[in-house]
Amino acid sequence: MSKNSEKNCCSHEHTSKHIYIYSPAGSLRDKAAFRRGIKRLEAMGHHVEVDPSAQDVHMRFAGNDEVRLAAIHRAAESGADVALITRGAYGLTRLLPEIDYRLIASSIERGTKFVGLSDFTAFQSAVLAKTGHVTWAGPCLLTDFGSADEPDEITMACFDDLLHGHGEGAGWRLPKERGAGENARDANQIYIPSSTLWGGNLAVLNDLIGTPFMPKIKNGILFVEDVGEHPYRIERMLTQLLYAGILEKQRALILGQFTGYKLAAHDKGFKFQTVVDWIRSKIQIPVICNLPFGHVPTKVLLPVGAKVELSVEDRDALIYWGHFH
Amino acid sequence: MSKNSEKNCCSHEHTSKHIYIYSPAGSLRDKAAFRRGIKRLEAMGHHVEVDPSAQDVHMRFAGNDEVRLAAIHRAAESGADVALITRGAYGLTRLLPEIDYRLIASSIERGTKFVGLSDFTAFQSAVLAKTGHVTWAGPCLLTDFGSADEPDEITMACFDDLLHGHGEGAGWRLPKERGAGENARDANQIYIPSSTLWGGNLAVLNDLIGTPFMPKIKNGILFVEDVGEHPYRIERMLTQLLYAGILEKQRALILGQFTGYKLAAHDKGFKFQTVVDWIRSKIQIPVICNLPFGHVPTKVLLPVGAKVELSVEDRDALIYWGHFH
Repeated sequence: MSKNSEKNCCSHEHTSKHIYIYSPAGSLRDKAAFRRGIKRLEAMGHHVEVDPSAQDVHMRFAGNDEVRLAAIHRAAESGADVALITRGAYGLTRLLPEIDYRLIASSIERGTKFVGLSDFTAFQSAVLAKTGHVTWAGPCLLTDFGSADEPDEITMACFDDLLHGHGEGAGWRLPKERGAGENARDANQIYIPSSTLWGGNLAVLNDLIGTPFMPKIKNGILFVEDVGEHPYRIERMLTQLLYAGILEKQRALILGQFTGYKLAAHDKGFKFQTVVDWIRSKIQIPVICNLPFGHVPTKVLLPVGAKVELSVEDRDALIYWGHFH
Repeated sequence: MSKNSEKNCCSHEHTSKHIYIYSPAGSLRDKAAFRRGIKRLEAMGHHVEVDPSAQDVHMRFAGNDEVRLAAIHRAAESGADVALITRGAYGLTRLLPEIDYRLIASSIERGTKFVGLSDFTAFQSAVLAKTGHVTWAGPCLLTDFGSADEPDEITMACFDDLLHGHGEGAGWRLPKERGAGENARDANQIYIPSSTLWGGNLAVLNDLIGTPFMPKIKNGILFVEDVGEHPYRIERMLTQLLYAGILEKQRALILGQFTGYKLAAHDKGFKFQTVVDWIRSKIQIPVICNLPFGHVPTKVLLPVGAKVELSVEDRDALIYWGHFH
């Protein structure tokens, strides 16, 4: 997309791409969504290859640890344009020490883009920590392509951009009211030059702190999202990033969508914005909200580990990686 | 208690002690339990001093950050035998950098025992990391002393032991079936000599990894408990302790009570015991289950940061710190 466009992503002519579908974490549960997702990708003209253990079930996992590890390695060897997870849930954390990161790296070097989110943050962080290579925070098969409703247009357009190498950035509108903690750092004009974009699901990322699978990113731009976490837990996790000295090494903190939690009567006004205000009071870098990414239908596709620029002009924010291609 | 006793704690003659009640984290919500707790402590013959902001409310907190910080410092300056939190919830993590650890240390040196659990793990870990001093993982006012039912006998006896300096250890029965992962390490005869006992609430502890408030304990005995965390999340947290190299530095892992979660149909047999078996397969140290500590009525009182011995004979486990007094 052009730097000045207000759309999140653009569409381009469709050409057939090779998409490899695999299940590195949770078992499918919704087979209808699985079939719908594959049909939709095929209807877009793509060659969809389904991993032989994509539908396996071992307790809550899509196969036992060995089965899922083998699936990841097959995805890496598939030569596909995109390796797309069926879904997140939980399962990758278990496998991190066993993954063949050289195999993943050479797959990425040959052009395979690994796409996913949520639990997949564990994989993406580990790949970045171990290889410095780029993976993509974006949709998964079941929720996005396999949705009972029509898939989200922006999500689909971003995916199309990725497939055709036309994606250059992700833009979004900032909230009108930015909260009590806003100050000069969160001004209407921000420009952050080439910095490493990283992050993903906050809980999954935080559970890597102190481990060899946590990227050590200086002067980065960190984005986080989460689902089903009460704001006090979001705050506790952001506070860990703060106390661990990770936030102070970044140039910006971008907050995606935090959804699926319930406030209680005894919260008495403590809410997500309270957390935003509090963390803003503790750090010197801009905190930029409302990134359309998370456990929501509309999600942009973000290159985890890539150098990006970040700009804010009035209420328009843009993560730009046009130079990256 | 004697080393061979099967009871968890023993009772002794009552003498009046000075107990300071304060609220470092969540607001009270249940004022009847607050009053009942104080009445019960007074009925035991104790002098109960209530911090002036114990009943404050600021959003979900018992006063804003400054108010709660001042309450902690007043508790340290109270000269009480025991400084007992009203309740946990969430709030201490926010305050960790501002706490006057020298004040806390000198209070402990003068004989004040800081008692609490759950969110209080943040305080206990920080005090251990910053001062090496001992605090006590145990009951809180509302849930334990203020319960609508009669307070738990063992919990009360352990508290009485603490007050009168008679507590020497905590014993419990191991489960009959110890699970698939059991092996020689988890044998019927275990003796671990003097080692630092530490831990508390798993989620609160994990959210300190990588921060200056995480104790760096080698050759320790780590105990953890949690409430409302699905086993897959317990596993993800234990895995962080594993990958961060923390478990391998310990001589034993003790699992307390993990309660208040719901398994789902799609877990298909994945349960807490699965997590125990999995973590046992990944580490070389004994994993000892069923410690009566956590978000349950029956809780032993444990000296966080103290040197203890751990022994298992058949199904009897004992944490012993009789030498500590």
